[in-house]
Amino acid sequence: MKLSVLQENLAKGLATASHSVASRVQLPVLSNVLLATDQGRLKLSATDLETGINYWLGAKVSREGTISIPAKVLTEFVASLPVEKVELETKENSLLISCGNYQAEFNGLAATEFPRIPSVKGKPDLTFAASDLIEAINQVALAAAQDEGRPVLTGVLFLVKGKHLVLAATDGYRLSLKKLPTTKGIIESKELKKGLIIPARTLTELARTAGEGEKENIGLTITKEANQAIFSTPDIEIVSRLIEGKYPDFEKIIPEKGKTNVVIDVAELTRAVRVAAIFAREAANVVRFKIDKKGMEITANTAQVGRNVARVEAKVNGPESKIAFNSRYLLDLLGILNSEQVNLEMNGALKPGVFTSTGDQSFLHIIMPVRVQE
Amino acid sequence: MKLSVLQENLAKGLATASHSVASRVQLPVLSNVLLATDQGRLKLSATDLETGINYWLGAKVSREGTISIPAKVLTEFVASLPVEKVELETKENSLLISCGNYQAEFNGLAATEFPRIPSVKGKPDLTFAASDLIEAINQVALAAAQDEGRPVLTGVLFLVKGKHLVLAATDGYRLSLKKLPTTKGIIESKELKKGLIIPARTLTELARTAGEGEKENIGLTITKEANQAIFSTPDIEIVSRLIEGKYPDFEKIIPEKGKTNVVIDVAELTRAVRVAAIFAREAANVVRFKIDKKGMEITANTAQVGRNVARVEAKVNGPESKIAFNSRYLLDLLGILNSEQVNLEMNGALKPGVFTSTGDQSFLHIIMPVRVQE
Repeated sequence: MKLSVLQENLAKGLATASHSVASRVQLPVLSNVLLATDQGRLKLSATDLETGINYWLGAKVSREGTISIPAKVLTEFVASLPVEKVELETKENSLLISCGNYQAEFNGLAATEFPRIPSVKGKPDLTFAASDLIEAINQVALAAAQDEGRPVLTGVLFLVKGKHLVLAATDGYRLSLKKLPTTKGIIESKELKKGLIIPARTLTELARTAGEGEKENIGLTITKEANQAIFSTPDIEIVSRLIEGKYPDFEKIIPEKGKTNVVIDVAELTRAVRVAAIFAREAANVVRFKIDKKGMEITANTAQVGRNVARVEAKVNGPESKIAFNSRYLLDLLGILNSEQVNLEMNGALKPGVFTSTGDQSFLHIIMPVRVQE
Repeated sequence: MKLSVLQENLAKGLATASHSVASRVQLPVLSNVLLATDQGRLKLSATDLETGINYWLGAKVSREGTISIPAKVLTEFVASLPVEKVELETKENSLLISCGNYQAEFNGLAATEFPRIPSVKGKPDLTFAASDLIEAINQVALAAAQDEGRPVLTGVLFLVKGKHLVLAATDGYRLSLKKLPTTKGIIESKELKKGLIIPARTLTELARTAGEGEKENIGLTITKEANQAIFSTPDIEIVSRLIEGKYPDFEKIIPEKGKTNVVIDVAELTRAVRVAAIFAREAANVVRFKIDKKGMEITANTAQVGRNVARVEAKVNGPESKIAFNSRYLLDLLGILNSEQVNLEMNGALKPGVFTSTGDQSFLHIIMPVRVQE
């Protein structure tokens, strides 16, 4: 392999690819990034066996070839180079790099040891508007479970329901749901009718990576073996294993219309919850809402620290009510709303609270209440 | 106690005072901040028994009083409040705070349990130009020892030598030295003639705190018991214990003029050392300099990763030479130079390297070389 690239392009590519490098390494080669010439471009690949990435960048290739190099030190090295042309050349199992007054020789591993990362041949099976998909991921993935107790809950469900594609995630304490605009291809997709469960971690990585370049479209292709999904843009492919198993029937827990309905300013509620969360930290993060005719009192108290009360005005319909939530779930939700006001519907202190963005029918978020003593 | 203050002033004061709160607490009261009315102002005090702080801010006092409150939660709470007037009122051992729609009650401790932090009565003993003292601290304190093996080395020596006040710190691997402009009071100070050893950590805190407000002068007062130093500005006092013991005779290790003299660009050298440090990380941080007639080659290599070479042009006088340093010490030094060029004098690979800022006679930094095999 012999080629030249611009320092800033290579640095950006390595930084992106490094995110998919295994942090705790079972196989030494997984801490490497694979460099390969590919039809006049340089292709960087990395994987932790759950998520993989292929990243292409413009290069002037004068000899084809491939090699894998420890990702961390290569990424840091290239990031520190001056903004000039970088020459890469392999010499047996070494990679020689020169850039301005800087020269380095990295010990690599033969590319044959690197795990195969699938790639899209031709056009992707399905296409999404990038902005829609990224927004949906950002509003849904946070509700997926962090712990691996029930593997399906660490994923986001992609499911066609009638004329909608629904993204859903739940960790048992909350549920986030987003309906996406669809195309004929999506509605008729066999896999999406059955439902795909994609790891939330991969999707978050996809939203981060694809969000940077402001791509127009994101493709989705399911591998022949039907065990991996490939999200693709012209320069990047993010490959993810699919989670097997049956996703819980989330529609069962969506309540009927609530008796008490509160419309409240997102910025004011966020500040009030954030302040209460400081007090709630030593009391299992419990924040209480007391809803009256004119608004809401947000309180938290702990035996050690003390207590606090914030009052936020709101438009309230229905009977006065009380409810308590985990402050972390509230702050997670408030962080992803894209409206100025949020709507809370509830049926008393023991039933789930249903949050919607005012003026946005496509999004729904449910948080289970915390049972508290008076 | 009953008073009102502006949210932004109280938030800033608490953030500053919190730095002196003990992180690992022997006594619960040390995790508190003391609030006290003091001649029409609010005084915040905190201490970890090594460093203490008194911080005054403007307040409208309507009832005198004092109380101590857990610093962390109070600081976070006040920082989250809207930018409005904040009302504070004590009620037995509680502090009531109200600000806009927010109200809180903090459980406190009686002020009598709070350790006494000395304060300056009248004028300080000595006065420094704030910018000189802060610069000197920033250039010297980094060379003090981190570990407590030899307590005197964790401090910075303040010593009058002839017509100069010298600040010096060494951890045995490097020495940093700065001469400060003096006044008659400083030259004649009995304590400074004998030498004061002040914890580097306190001085770094002083430089950070006093650097913010761009104070003109910083006072220094030694307590009657001669065991504490108080640095003071009109709004802030930083109180530090003094370190007892005999400071090593640092002048002995300052070498005569070096045979090889290199003048090199700080930005270019910094980049080259930073790049080499990436490779050196798995090889005890050893970075090698090879000096020839026209400049310097900076290299690092490790068996696992590989090796790198950077070339930086320099003005060289004297014989060609080689020397190796710990990259961390080099980067620490390069980070505090305030000149565009740095001067390195050396006498071969085994003698210390002497670094000076080109055009600045007041600063000197010595780094011991690392003995390496060819």
